[in-house]
Amino acid sequence: MNTVDNRIASGEIKLPRPPAPAANYVGAVEQGGFLDVSGQIHTDNGELKKGKVGADVTLEEAIGMARIASENALAVAHSVRGSLDGLRVHRLRVYVVGAEGFHEQHLVGNGASDYLIEVFRELGTHSRTSVGVAALPFGAAVEVELTFQVAS
Amino acid sequence: MNTVDNRIASGEIKLPRPPAPAANYVGAVEQGGFLDVSGQIHTDNGELKKGKVGADVTLEEAIGMARIASENALAVAHSVRGSLDGLRVHRLRVYVVGAEGFHEQHLVGNGASDYLIEVFRELGTHSRTSVGVAALPFGAAVEVELTFQVAS
Amino acid sequence: MNTVDNRIASGEIKLPRPPAPAANYVGAVEQGGFLDVSGQIHTDNGELKKGKVGADVTLEEAIGMARIASENALAVAHSVRGSLDGLRVHRLRVYVVGAEGFHEQHLVGNGASDYLIEVFRELGTHSRTSVGVAALPFGAAVEVELTFQVAS
Repeated sequence: MNTVDNRIASGEIKLPRPPAPAANYVGAVEQGGFLDVSGQIHTDNGELKKGKVGADVTLEEAIGMARIASENALAVAHSVRGSLDGLRVHRLRVYVVGAEGFHEQHLVGNGASDYLIEVFRELGTHSRTSVGVAALPFGAAVEVELTFQVAS
Repeated sequence: MNTVDNRIASGEIKLPRPPAPAANYVGAVEQGGFLDVSGQIHTDNGELKKGKVGADVTLEEAIGMARIASENALAVAHSVRGSLDGLRVHRLRVYVVGAEGFHEQHLVGNGASDYLIEVFRELGTHSRTSVGVAALPFGAAVEVELTFQVAS
Repeated sequence: MNTVDNRIASGEIKLPRPPAPAANYVGAVEQGGFLDVSGQIHTDNGELKKGKVGADVTLEEAIGMARIASENALAVAHSVRGSLDGLRVHRLRVYVVGAEGFHEQHLVGNGASDYLIEVFRELGTHSRTSVGVAALPFGAAVEVELTFQVAS
Protein backbone atom coordinates (compact mmCIF):
# COMPACT_ATOMS: atom_id res chain seq x y z
CA MET A 1 0.00 0.00 0.00
CA ASN A 2 1.21 3.46 -0.86
CA THR A 3 0.83 4.83 2.68
CA VAL A 4 2.64 7.89 3.98
CA ASP A 5 4.99 5.64 5.95
CA ASN A 6 5.80 3.64 2.83
CA ARG A 7 6.45 6.84 0.91
CA ILE A 8 8.80 7.94 3.70
CA ALA A 9 10.53 4.53 3.60
CA SER A 10 10.96 4.74 -0.18
CA GLY A 11 12.43 8.23 0.03
CA GLU A 12 9.56 9.83 -1.89
CA ILE A 13 8.79 11.91 1.23
CA LYS A 14 11.87 13.20 3.02
CA LEU A 15 11.49 14.40 6.58
CA PRO A 16 14.07 16.63 8.26
CA ARG A 17 15.57 15.82 11.64
CA PRO A 18 12.83 16.75 14.16
CA PRO A 19 13.63 20.00 16.02
CA ALA A 20 13.83 19.63 19.79
CA PRO A 21 11.29 21.63 21.78
CA ALA A 22 12.75 25.07 22.51
CA ALA A 23 11.63 24.94 26.10
CA ASN A 24 9.84 22.91 28.76
CA TYR A 25 7.18 21.10 26.73
CA VAL A 26 7.05 18.20 24.28
CA GLY A 27 6.90 18.06 20.51
CA ALA A 28 3.47 16.49 20.26
CA VAL A 29 0.76 14.99 22.44
CA GLU A 30 -1.70 12.30 21.33
CA GLN A 31 -4.76 11.71 23.48
CA GLY A 32 -8.54 11.73 23.15
CA GLY A 33 -8.27 10.91 19.44
CA PHE A 34 -6.25 13.95 18.49
CA LEU A 35 -2.55 14.55 17.96
CA ASP A 36 -1.48 18.12 18.65
CA VAL A 37 1.95 19.18 17.47
CA SER A 38 3.71 22.07 19.16
CA GLY A 39 4.17 25.19 17.05
CA GLN A 40 7.04 24.81 14.58
CA ILE A 41 9.16 27.45 12.90
CA HIS A 42 11.21 27.24 9.69
CA THR A 43 14.56 26.16 11.08
CA ASP A 44 16.33 24.51 8.16
CA ASN A 45 19.40 22.41 8.89
CA GLY A 46 19.93 24.42 12.04
CA GLU A 47 19.62 27.79 10.29
CA LEU A 48 16.77 30.26 10.70
CA LYS A 49 16.23 33.20 8.35
CA LYS A 50 14.80 36.07 10.41
CA GLY A 51 12.75 39.07 9.42
CA LYS A 52 9.35 40.33 8.37
CA VAL A 53 7.47 39.29 5.27
CA GLY A 54 7.22 42.22 2.89
CA ALA A 55 10.45 43.76 4.22
CA ASP A 56 13.36 41.36 4.78
CA VAL A 57 11.52 38.28 3.52
CA THR A 58 9.69 38.01 0.19
CA LEU A 59 6.28 36.41 -0.18
CA GLU A 60 7.84 33.54 -2.10
CA GLU A 61 10.37 32.99 0.68
CA ALA A 62 7.62 33.07 3.29
CA ILE A 63 5.63 30.43 1.41
CA GLY A 64 8.77 28.28 1.47
CA MET A 65 9.13 28.93 5.20
CA ALA A 66 5.59 27.73 5.82
CA ARG A 67 6.46 24.55 3.96
CA ILE A 68 9.66 24.01 5.96
CA ALA A 69 7.82 24.63 9.24
CA SER A 70 5.27 22.00 8.16
CA GLU A 71 8.03 19.55 7.31
CA ASN A 72 9.40 20.12 10.81
CA ALA A 73 5.94 19.49 12.26
CA LEU A 74 5.62 16.18 10.41
CA ALA A 75 9.12 15.21 11.51
CA VAL A 76 8.12 15.86 15.11
CA ALA A 77 4.89 13.88 14.74
CA HIS A 78 6.79 11.01 13.16
CA SER A 79 9.41 11.00 15.89
CA VAL A 80 6.78 10.96 18.65
CA ARG A 81 4.56 8.16 17.31
CA GLY A 82 6.88 6.38 14.89
CA SER A 83 4.40 6.68 12.03
CA LEU A 84 2.37 9.18 10.05
CA ASP A 85 -0.17 6.55 9.01
CA GLY A 86 -3.60 6.75 10.62
CA LEU A 87 -3.46 10.54 10.80
CA ARG A 88 -5.90 12.93 9.18
CA VAL A 89 -5.05 16.62 9.16
CA HIS A 90 -7.73 18.42 11.17
CA ARG A 91 -6.69 22.00 11.79
CA LEU A 92 -3.83 24.22 10.63
CA ARG A 93 -2.88 27.57 12.11
CA VAL A 94 -0.33 29.78 10.40
CA TYR A 95 1.18 32.74 12.24
CA VAL A 96 2.99 35.27 10.03
CA VAL A 97 5.17 38.25 10.98
CA GLY A 98 4.69 40.82 8.24
CA ALA A 99 5.84 44.36 7.58
CA GLU A 100 3.25 47.10 8.14
CA GLY A 101 0.60 46.79 5.45
CA PHE A 102 1.24 43.12 4.66
CA HIS A 103 -2.12 41.38 4.26
CA GLU A 104 -1.35 38.15 2.39
CA GLN A 105 -1.09 35.83 5.37
CA HIS A 106 -3.42 33.43 3.53
CA LEU A 107 -0.95 33.10 0.65
CA VAL A 108 1.85 32.32 3.09
CA GLY A 109 -0.42 29.68 4.61
CA ASN A 110 -0.65 27.95 1.25
CA GLY A 111 2.94 26.85 1.62
CA ALA A 112 1.77 24.72 4.53
CA SER A 113 -1.57 23.65 3.04
CA ASP A 114 -0.08 22.54 -0.27
CA TYR A 115 2.58 20.49 1.48
CA LEU A 116 0.04 18.76 3.75
CA ILE A 117 -2.09 17.77 0.78
CA GLU A 118 0.99 16.58 -1.09
CA VAL A 119 1.86 14.27 1.82
CA PHE A 120 -1.57 13.18 3.10
CA ARG A 121 -3.59 13.53 -0.14
CA GLU A 122 -7.32 13.10 0.59
CA LEU A 123 -6.51 12.77 4.31
CA GLY A 124 -4.77 16.14 4.19
CA THR A 125 -7.90 18.26 3.79
CA HIS A 126 -8.02 20.71 6.68
CA SER A 127 -9.59 23.77 8.24
CA ARG A 128 -7.24 26.70 8.55
CA THR A 129 -6.63 30.07 10.17
CA SER A 130 -3.87 32.45 9.07
CA VAL A 131 -3.16 35.56 11.10
CA GLY A 132 -0.48 38.22 11.24
CA VAL A 133 1.31 38.31 14.58
CA ALA A 134 3.71 40.87 16.04
CA ALA A 135 6.69 38.58 16.57
CA LEU A 136 7.69 34.94 16.88
CA PRO A 137 10.31 33.08 18.93
CA PHE A 138 13.92 33.52 17.74
CA GLY A 139 12.84 36.14 15.19
CA ALA A 140 11.13 33.61 12.91
CA ALA A 141 8.82 34.97 10.21
CA VAL A 142 6.39 32.03 10.13
CA GLU A 143 5.10 29.53 12.68
CA VAL A 144 2.85 26.56 11.91
CA GLU A 145 0.60 24.70 14.37
CA LEU A 146 -1.02 21.39 13.44
CA THR A 147 -3.78 19.24 14.89
CA PHE A 148 -4.44 15.75 13.50
CA GLN A 149 -7.33 13.43 14.11
CA VAL A 150 -6.13 9.88 14.78
CA ALA A 151 -7.99 6.99 13.19
CA SER A 152 -9.33 4.71 15.90
CA MET B 1 -39.27 21.39 17.34
CA ASN B 2 -37.74 24.83 17.33
CA THR B 3 -34.29 23.64 16.23
CA VAL B 4 -31.70 25.88 14.61
CA ASP B 5 -32.44 24.26 11.23
CA ASN B 6 -36.15 24.96 11.66
CA ARG B 7 -35.39 28.57 12.57
CA ILE B 8 -33.26 28.83 9.41
CA ALA B 9 -36.08 27.29 7.35
CA SER B 10 -38.64 29.72 8.80
CA GLY B 11 -36.40 32.70 8.04
CA GLU B 12 -35.94 33.59 11.71
CA ILE B 13 -32.21 32.97 11.28
CA LYS B 14 -30.78 34.26 8.00
CA LEU B 15 -27.42 32.94 6.88
CA PRO B 16 -25.32 34.73 4.26
CA ARG B 17 -23.90 32.95 1.23
CA PRO B 18 -20.90 30.96 2.57
CA PRO B 19 -17.57 32.55 1.60
CA ALA B 20 -15.30 30.29 -0.42
CA PRO B 21 -11.95 29.46 1.20
CA ALA B 22 -9.41 32.11 0.19
CA ALA B 23 -6.77 29.51 -0.54
CA ASN B 24 -5.94 25.82 -0.59
CA TYR B 25 -8.01 24.48 2.32
CA VAL B 26 -11.65 23.76 3.08
CA GLY B 27 -14.30 25.68 4.97
CA ALA B 28 -14.77 23.20 7.76
CA VAL B 29 -13.68 19.73 8.81
CA GLU B 30 -15.75 17.37 10.98
CA GLN B 31 -13.99 14.38 12.51
CA GLY B 32 -13.35 12.88 15.93
CA GLY B 33 -16.51 14.48 17.29
CA PHE B 34 -15.51 18.05 16.55
CA LEU B 35 -16.31 20.43 13.70
CA ASP B 36 -13.60 23.01 13.10
CA VAL B 37 -14.48 25.95 10.87
CA SER B 38 -11.72 27.82 9.07
CA GLY B 39 -11.10 31.39 10.22
CA GLN B 40 -13.71 33.77 8.84
CA ILE B 41 -13.52 37.51 8.26
CA HIS B 42 -16.33 40.07 7.96
CA THR B 43 -16.90 40.03 4.23
CA ASP B 44 -20.45 41.29 3.78
CA ASN B 45 -22.11 40.81 0.40
CA GLY B 46 -18.67 40.71 -1.18
CA GLU B 47 -17.46 43.88 0.51
CA LEU B 48 -14.82 44.11 3.23
CA LYS B 49 -14.27 47.22 5.32
CA LYS B 50 -10.56 47.44 6.10
CA GLY B 51 -8.70 49.18 8.88
CA LYS B 52 -7.74 49.11 12.54
CA VAL B 53 -10.16 49.28 15.43
CA GLY B 54 -9.70 52.54 17.28
CA ALA B 55 -8.47 54.33 14.17
CA ASP B 56 -10.42 53.64 10.93
CA VAL B 57 -12.98 51.37 12.58
CA THR B 58 -15.03 52.20 15.68
CA LEU B 59 -15.61 49.76 18.52
CA GLU B 60 -19.29 49.53 17.54
CA GLU B 61 -18.34 48.73 13.95
CA ALA B 62 -15.86 46.11 15.13
CA ILE B 63 -18.52 44.42 17.26
CA GLY B 64 -20.68 44.27 14.12
CA MET B 65 -17.77 42.82 12.17
CA ALA B 66 -17.36 40.05 14.74
CA ARG B 67 -21.03 39.25 14.29
CA ILE B 68 -20.77 39.18 10.49
CA ALA B 69 -17.68 36.98 10.65
CA SER B 70 -19.64 34.60 12.89
CA GLU B 71 -22.56 34.59 10.46
CA ASN B 72 -20.09 33.65 7.74
CA ALA B 73 -18.73 30.86 9.93
CA LEU B 74 -22.22 29.42 10.48
CA ALA B 75 -22.95 29.70 6.76
CA VAL B 76 -19.79 27.71 6.05
CA ALA B 77 -20.68 25.08 8.68
CA HIS B 78 -24.19 24.80 7.25
CA SER B 79 -22.91 24.45 3.70
CA VAL B 80 -20.46 21.72 4.67
CA ARG B 81 -22.81 19.51 6.73
CA GLY B 82 -26.23 20.63 5.53
CA SER B 83 -27.41 21.33 9.07
CA LEU B 84 -26.57 23.27 12.20
CA ASP B 85 -28.52 20.88 14.43
CA GLY B 86 -26.49 18.57 16.64
CA LEU B 87 -23.79 21.20 17.13
CA ARG B 88 -22.70 22.69 20.44
CA VAL B 89 -20.34 25.65 20.38
CA HIS B 90 -17.11 24.60 22.07
CA ARG B 91 -14.45 27.23 21.52
CA LEU B 92 -14.35 30.70 19.98
CA ARG B 93 -11.23 32.65 19.09
CA VAL B 94 -11.46 36.27 18.07
CA TYR B 95 -8.50 38.01 16.43
CA VAL B 96 -8.67 41.81 16.35
CA VAL B 97 -6.48 44.34 14.55
CA GLY B 98 -6.44 47.45 16.73
CA ALA B 99 -4.70 50.80 16.68
CA GLU B 100 -1.81 51.24 19.13
CA GLY B 101 -3.27 51.34 22.62
CA PHE B 102 -6.51 49.50 21.79
CA HIS B 103 -7.22 46.99 24.57
CA GLU B 104 -10.91 46.14 24.21
CA GLN B 105 -10.54 42.97 22.17
CA HIS B 106 -12.93 41.29 24.61
CA LEU B 107 -15.69 43.76 23.77
CA VAL B 108 -15.19 43.11 20.07
CA GLY B 109 -15.46 39.41 20.83
CA ASN B 110 -18.91 39.96 22.33
CA GLY B 111 -20.25 40.59 18.83
CA ALA B 112 -19.47 36.96 18.10
CA SER B 113 -20.44 35.55 21.50
CA ASP B 114 -23.83 37.28 21.57
CA TYR B 115 -24.67 36.05 18.09
CA LEU B 116 -23.72 32.46 18.90
CA ILE B 117 -25.94 32.45 21.96
CA GLU B 118 -28.76 34.03 19.95
CA VAL B 119 -28.57 31.18 17.44
CA PHE B 120 -27.66 28.18 19.59
CA ARG B 121 -29.17 29.33 22.91
CA GLU B 122 -28.12 26.97 25.72
CA LEU B 123 -26.00 25.01 23.23
CA GLY B 124 -24.14 28.21 22.38
CA THR B 125 -22.23 28.51 25.66
CA HIS B 126 -18.53 28.55 24.84
CA SER B 127 -14.98 29.14 26.01
CA ARG B 128 -13.26 32.06 24.35
CA THR B 129 -9.98 33.78 23.68
CA SER B 130 -9.71 37.30 22.22
CA VAL B 131 -6.32 38.65 21.21
CA GLY B 132 -5.01 41.65 19.32
CA VAL B 133 -3.07 40.63 16.21
CA ALA B 134 -0.83 42.70 13.93
CA ALA B 135 -2.75 42.13 10.68
CA LEU B 136 -5.29 39.87 9.01
CA PRO B 137 -5.77 38.61 5.45
CA PHE B 138 -7.11 41.20 2.97
CA GLY B 139 -6.79 43.97 5.58
CA ALA B 140 -9.71 42.68 7.67
CA ALA B 141 -10.08 44.10 11.18
CA VAL B 142 -11.62 41.01 12.79
CA GLU B 143 -11.31 37.26 12.27
CA VAL B 144 -13.37 34.61 14.04
CA GLU B 145 -12.47 30.94 14.49
CA LEU B 146 -15.02 28.41 15.74
CA THR B 147 -14.89 24.86 17.05
CA PHE B 148 -18.11 22.90 17.64
CA GLN B 149 -18.65 19.65 19.43
CA VAL B 150 -20.90 17.32 17.45
CA ALA B 151 -23.56 15.36 19.30
CA SER B 152 -22.97 11.64 18.77
CA MET C 1 -3.59 9.10 46.91
CA ASN C 2 -1.58 12.20 46.23
CA THR C 3 -3.93 13.53 43.55
CA VAL C 4 -4.10 17.14 42.47
CA ASP C 5 -7.35 17.57 44.40
CA ASN C 6 -5.73 16.16 47.54
CA ARG C 7 -2.77 18.52 47.09
CA ILE C 8 -5.25 21.41 46.78
CA ALA C 9 -7.07 20.21 49.91
CA SER C 10 -3.81 19.97 51.87
CA GLY C 11 -2.78 23.47 50.84
CA GLU C 12 0.26 22.26 48.86
CA ILE C 13 -1.34 23.73 45.73
CA LYS C 14 -3.01 27.10 46.30
CA LEU C 15 -5.47 28.31 43.67
CA PRO C 16 -6.50 31.96 43.39
CA ARG C 17 -10.12 33.03 43.28
CA PRO C 18 -11.28 32.25 39.71
CA PRO C 19 -11.60 35.40 37.58
CA ALA C 20 -15.07 35.94 36.16
CA PRO C 21 -15.31 35.95 32.36
CA ALA C 22 -14.73 39.51 31.12
CA ALA C 23 -17.64 39.28 28.72
CA ASN C 24 -20.43 37.11 27.38
CA TYR C 25 -18.89 33.63 27.54
CA VAL C 26 -18.04 31.08 30.22
CA GLY C 27 -14.83 30.18 31.96
CA ALA C 28 -14.52 26.68 30.62
CA VAL C 29 -16.45 24.15 28.54
CA GLU C 30 -16.12 20.37 28.90
CA GLN C 31 -17.55 18.22 26.13
CA GLY C 32 -16.39 15.56 23.69
CA GLY C 33 -13.63 14.49 26.07
CA PHE C 34 -11.90 17.86 26.20
CA LEU C 35 -12.03 20.74 28.65
CA ASP C 36 -11.27 24.10 27.06
CA VAL C 37 -10.55 27.00 29.38
CA SER C 38 -11.12 30.55 28.18
CA GLY C 39 -8.00 32.68 27.74
CA GLN C 40 -6.69 33.95 31.07
CA ILE C 41 -4.54 36.94 31.85
CA HIS C 42 -2.33 37.64 34.87
CA THR C 43 -4.78 39.44 37.11
CA ASP C 44 -3.40 39.00 40.62
CA ASN C 45 -5.67 39.79 43.56
CA GLY C 46 -7.61 42.13 41.33
CA GLU C 47 -4.54 43.95 40.03
CA LEU C 48 -3.13 43.79 36.52
CA LYS C 49 0.33 45.05 35.63
CA LYS C 50 0.17 46.44 32.09
CA GLY C 51 2.85 46.92 29.49
CA LYS C 52 5.09 45.26 26.93
CA VAL C 53 7.74 42.68 27.69
CA GLY C 54 11.16 44.14 27.01
CA ALA C 55 9.98 47.68 27.74
CA ASP C 56 7.74 48.13 30.81
CA VAL C 57 7.88 44.47 31.85
CA THR C 58 11.05 42.41 32.31
CA LEU C 59 11.43 38.87 31.03
CA GLU C 60 11.44 37.59 34.61
CA GLU C 61 8.22 39.46 35.35
CA ALA C 62 6.63 38.08 32.18
CA ILE C 63 7.53 34.53 33.18
CA GLY C 64 5.78 35.21 36.49
CA MET C 65 2.77 36.58 34.63
CA ALA C 66 2.51 33.41 32.57
CA ARG C 67 2.52 31.45 35.82
CA ILE C 68 -0.20 33.63 37.36
CA ALA C 69 -2.34 33.39 34.22
CA SER C 70 -1.99 29.60 34.44
CA GLU C 71 -2.99 29.63 38.11
CA ASN C 72 -6.07 31.60 37.08
CA ALA C 73 -6.82 29.05 34.37
CA LEU C 74 -6.64 26.18 36.87
CA ALA C 75 -8.83 28.12 39.32
CA VAL C 76 -11.42 28.52 36.55
CA ALA C 77 -11.24 24.84 35.61
CA HIS C 78 -11.59 23.85 39.26
CA SER C 79 -14.57 26.16 39.77
CA VAL C 80 -16.36 24.81 36.69
CA ARG C 81 -15.93 21.07 37.37
CA GLY C 82 -15.18 21.00 41.08
CA SER C 83 -12.03 18.97 40.57
CA LEU C 84 -8.73 18.96 38.72
CA ASP C 85 -8.41 15.19 38.93
CA GLY C 86 -8.96 13.26 35.73
CA LEU C 87 -7.43 16.02 33.63
CA ARG C 88 -4.38 15.71 31.40
CA VAL C 89 -2.92 18.87 29.92
CA HIS C 90 -3.22 18.63 26.15
CA ARG C 91 -2.38 21.98 24.57
CA LEU C 92 -1.06 25.30 25.83
CA ARG C 93 -1.04 28.55 23.90
CA VAL C 94 0.83 31.56 25.24
CA TYR C 95 0.23 35.01 23.76
CA VAL C 96 2.85 37.63 24.63
CA VAL C 97 2.88 41.38 24.02
CA GLY C 98 6.51 42.37 23.53
CA ALA C 99 8.40 45.50 22.65
CA GLU C 100 9.73 45.72 19.09
CA GLY C 101 12.53 43.21 18.73
CA PHE C 102 11.42 40.93 21.59
CA HIS C 103 11.74 37.33 20.43
CA GLU C 104 11.74 35.28 23.64
CA GLN C 105 8.06 34.36 23.71
CA HIS C 106 9.13 30.75 24.32
CA LEU C 107 10.90 31.72 27.55
CA VAL C 108 7.78 33.53 28.74
CA GLY C 109 5.82 30.40 27.94
CA ASN C 110 8.01 28.42 30.34
CA GLY C 111 6.35 30.20 33.24
CA ALA C 112 3.15 28.41 32.25
CA SER C 113 4.73 25.11 31.26
CA ASP C 114 6.75 24.77 34.45
CA TYR C 115 3.72 25.47 36.60
CA LEU C 116 1.56 22.93 34.75
CA ILE C 117 4.17 20.23 35.23
CA GLU C 118 4.54 21.20 38.89
CA VAL C 119 0.79 20.67 39.40
CA PHE C 120 -0.01 17.79 37.07
CA ARG C 121 3.41 16.07 37.03
CA GLU C 122 3.44 13.32 34.38
CA LEU C 123 -0.11 14.30 33.35
CA GLY C 124 1.10 17.83 32.71
CA THR C 125 3.12 17.07 29.58
CA HIS C 126 1.74 19.23 26.77
CA SER C 127 2.13 20.56 23.27
CA ARG C 128 2.63 24.30 23.09
CA THR C 129 2.61 27.35 20.86
CA SER C 130 3.99 30.74 21.95
CA VAL C 131 3.46 33.77 19.74
CA GLY C 132 3.92 37.51 20.03
CA VAL C 133 0.66 39.40 19.63
CA ALA C 134 0.01 43.12 19.16
CA ALA C 135 -2.15 43.68 22.23
CA LEU C 136 -4.29 41.88 24.81
CA PRO C 137 -7.49 42.77 26.67
CA PHE C 138 -7.08 45.35 29.46
CA GLY C 139 -3.47 45.98 28.46
CA ALA C 140 -2.26 42.61 29.76
CA ALA C 141 1.22 41.49 28.69
CA VAL C 142 0.54 37.73 28.70
CA GLU C 143 -2.50 35.55 28.02
CA VAL C 144 -2.65 31.78 28.47
CA GLU C 145 -5.08 29.37 26.83
CA LEU C 146 -5.39 25.77 28.00
CA THR C 147 -6.97 22.61 26.63
CA PHE C 148 -7.19 19.47 28.79
CA GLN C 149 -8.09 15.95 27.84
CA VAL C 150 -10.55 14.43 30.29
CA ALA C 151 -10.05 10.82 31.37
CA SER C 152 -13.12 8.78 30.45
